[in-house]
Amino acid sequence: MQIRVGKTNSHKNFFFKCNHCNYSYETPMPIFISNVLPEILDVEKANIERSFKNGNIKFYESQGINGLLFRKSVGKIESGTMVCFGDKIEIIRGFPKIRRTLMLEPSLKIHFDQEVAVEEKMNGYNVRIALINNRIIAFTRGGYVCPYTTKKAPEIMDMDEFFNDHPELVICGEMVGTENPYVTHHYREIGNLGFRIFDLREKSSNNAMSIPDKIKILEFYGLPGVKLFEIMDIKDAPKKIFDLVFKLGKDNREGVVIKDPSMEIDPLKYTSSQAHNGELQYAFTYPFDFGRSFFFSRVIREGFQAYELNESEDEIRHRAHMIGESILYPMIHTIKHVANDNLASENIIIHVDNMNEAEDFVRYLRDLGVVATVHSFEDGKAIIRRVHQSTTDRISNFLRGGLY
Amino acid sequence: MQIRVGKTNSHKNFFFKCNHCNYSYETPMPIFISNVLPEILDVEKANIERSFKNGNIKFYESQGINGLLFRKSVGKIESGTMVCFGDKIEIIRGFPKIRRTLMLEPSLKIHFDQEVAVEEKMNGYNVRIALINNRIIAFTRGGYVCPYTTKKAPEIMDMDEFFNDHPELVICGEMVGTENPYVTHHYREIGNLGFRIFDLREKSSNNAMSIPDKIKILEFYGLPGVKLFEIMDIKDAPKKIFDLVFKLGKDNREGVVIKDPSMEIDPLKYTSSQAHNGELQYAFTYPFDFGRSFFFSRVIREGFQAYELNESEDEIRHRAHMIGESILYPMIHTIKHVANDNLASENIIIHVDNMNEAEDFVRYLRDLGVVATVHSFEDGKAIIRRVHQSTTDRISNFLRGGLY
Repeated sequence: MQIRVGKTNSHKNFFFKCNHCNYSYETPMPIFISNVLPEILDVEKANIERSFKNGNIKFYESQGINGLLFRKSVGKIESGTMVCFGDKIEIIRGFPKIRRTLMLEPSLKIHFDQEVAVEEKMNGYNVRIALINNRIIAFTRGGYVCPYTTKKAPEIMDMDEFFNDHPELVICGEMVGTENPYVTHHYREIGNLGFRIFDLREKSSNNAMSIPDKIKILEFYGLPGVKLFEIMDIKDAPKKIFDLVFKLGKDNREGVVIKDPSMEIDPLKYTSSQAHNGELQYAFTYPFDFGRSFFFSRVIREGFQAYELNESEDEIRHRAHMIGESILYPMIHTIKHVANDNLASENIIIHVDNMNEAEDFVRYLRDLGVVATVHSFEDGKAIIRRVHQSTTDRISNFLRGGLY
Repeated sequence: MQIRVGKTNSHKNFFFKCNHCNYSYETPMPIFISNVLPEILDVEKANIERSFKNGNIKFYESQGINGLLFRKSVGKIESGTMVCFGDKIEIIRGFPKIRRTLMLEPSLKIHFDQEVAVEEKMNGYNVRIALINNRIIAFTRGGYVCPYTTKKAPEIMDMDEFFNDHPELVICGEMVGTENPYVTHHYREIGNLGFRIFDLREKSSNNAMSIPDKIKILEFYGLPGVKLFEIMDIKDAPKKIFDLVFKLGKDNREGVVIKDPSMEIDPLKYTSSQAHNGELQYAFTYPFDFGRSFFFSRVIREGFQAYELNESEDEIRHRAHMIGESILYPMIHTIKHVANDNLASENIIIHVDNMNEAEDFVRYLRDLGVVATVHSFEDGKAIIRRVHQSTTDRISNFLRGGLY
């Protein structure tokens, strides 16, 4: 059965039209959840119903897009998946989690075939861009429509022709640069704001295009891909990747994603010591918001990297000292900052046309649970102040003598 | 109503005798849980019933002691509480959690009155010893009867006269030394195995004796107390405690417990940088068993201690480097150890009379979920090998190329 779905005035009912006999009827939401969704997603009905009941599949409406958002994975359907309603159902699958190798050599050997394609992993935020109801829409990793990225991505790159020819594809990439609302990192070739595409995937199936095909298409439409360093023989890969990641680290860059050129095997990621320490520094600038969850995996990565590289005593000592400094220095800095009656906050710069647009964006952030206010607007730039509330509250409390 | 309880042959029924009219009757367990327990503990019936249903209050039988064990707190009743059945009900309350100050000066000011008693906090394992059915029984923090401590404590100190005169008191103290099954730490004045008493508390109420009274009683019965450094004026306390903790740290000792001399206000604890690093070192020797849960609070303590002591750049750098080394060195050591086909394990030395007793103890550890085997027995000493399974398994898996 193929179906077309139209929302009726009542949010909870759906209008179905059978493509076969053209018979149309209205159906209440529970029937859609229980009977239609399992079929179009190919997931067991009981799993879908349980997730819906638990609130892990929830209604979502924003920026003119409405549908169902998967807050957690259900069967093979990734968290961050959006089932968008409109003229037809569009399924934008969540971006699959890329697993990490701690020991490059054995992982590559057992995971991949003959060759691997090594691309740069950039430090920004993961975005999926797709055509929904003839509009180009950008989704965050969690599946939310990001109004800022939806507005800025088309200014950075022209996707009209691409989506005209390939309405069934999803552009998966990283928004990067120093002036974006989520993850800021300076790249000399990017500057304020840029976009780098790493995958082209199909709606519904989430199948990814092979690396050579992806590169051809991106070149054809003049779209910016992430840097592909090399497609290399698996035998040379560990040594080459260590050298690469070492150089990237020296340049304060994050690391690599290692891919099967045909994209039939899941990619893996591997990152530089500098990236681990950079993340520790950020986490321990706001220790009670991020410290606990960020910490463990970063130091584990350092341990295995030092071991696999068979590092000398001096090298290990240096690595240990960097870990300690990345944890303690920012923490003490923030304690002093809060002791001087300040909030633990960070400034986010975004490009907007006016104050109203900045305030709209802050409202969107608040809906996501982020505490933020517009600090200033001038010359098309708004400074948004993001407050890290747990860090502010708990440090203030301890400074006043509160107990742990 | 006062009641006496005797267990009948059927484990699930209880024999009650009313102290008032001497009428006796048998009552099934659900009635005991729902009607008797809430009354004798002064906790709401619904809370008790919920905890019992969730398995947080469970039946326990070991070493001839049987009763109900509180795995989590219920109302004011602490986790680790044992309600022991026998000729009468004996309630051994859980040892109350001692909260920690991160900022000594403001905490002392708002928490205590005129004076504080500062005692040494020792690095061992918390034990409560009480008279149950005329036997001296030692309970672990979690409320389990520890066969080893039950046997060894009376060898270390003679409690017969004390318990003869004070059957309603509970001895709360720390088992310390290098040859014990739980936490080993070298103290030059202790050696292999010793016991230090920090509190005398009443059964049922958990009220603690004042510091002067406790000291008098311990002296009278020749029982070993923890070191009381001084009862000091609150105004001098922060400076004096910093000096003390600094000296203790230099001597690789843990820190202090700060008490209201009348024991009407809850005590607080404060520990040395060396203690924090020592715990990090242990945790990261077995990172996948302890690293995640140990880490955060230890580095937070370091941050606030450095801040409150207004440390110089050099002092902070040293503290940071110690943190990093305490994390990375033991982790790399264990990775290498497991890479050489070893288990991540530690040897525990206990004093037993024969192999059978050692094997009994290992069975007891296994019941607690600890993976252990008897490695050897010679001259009254058994070496127990405790295996840290998650660390062994996960490191082996990553070394073979498993993904994170």
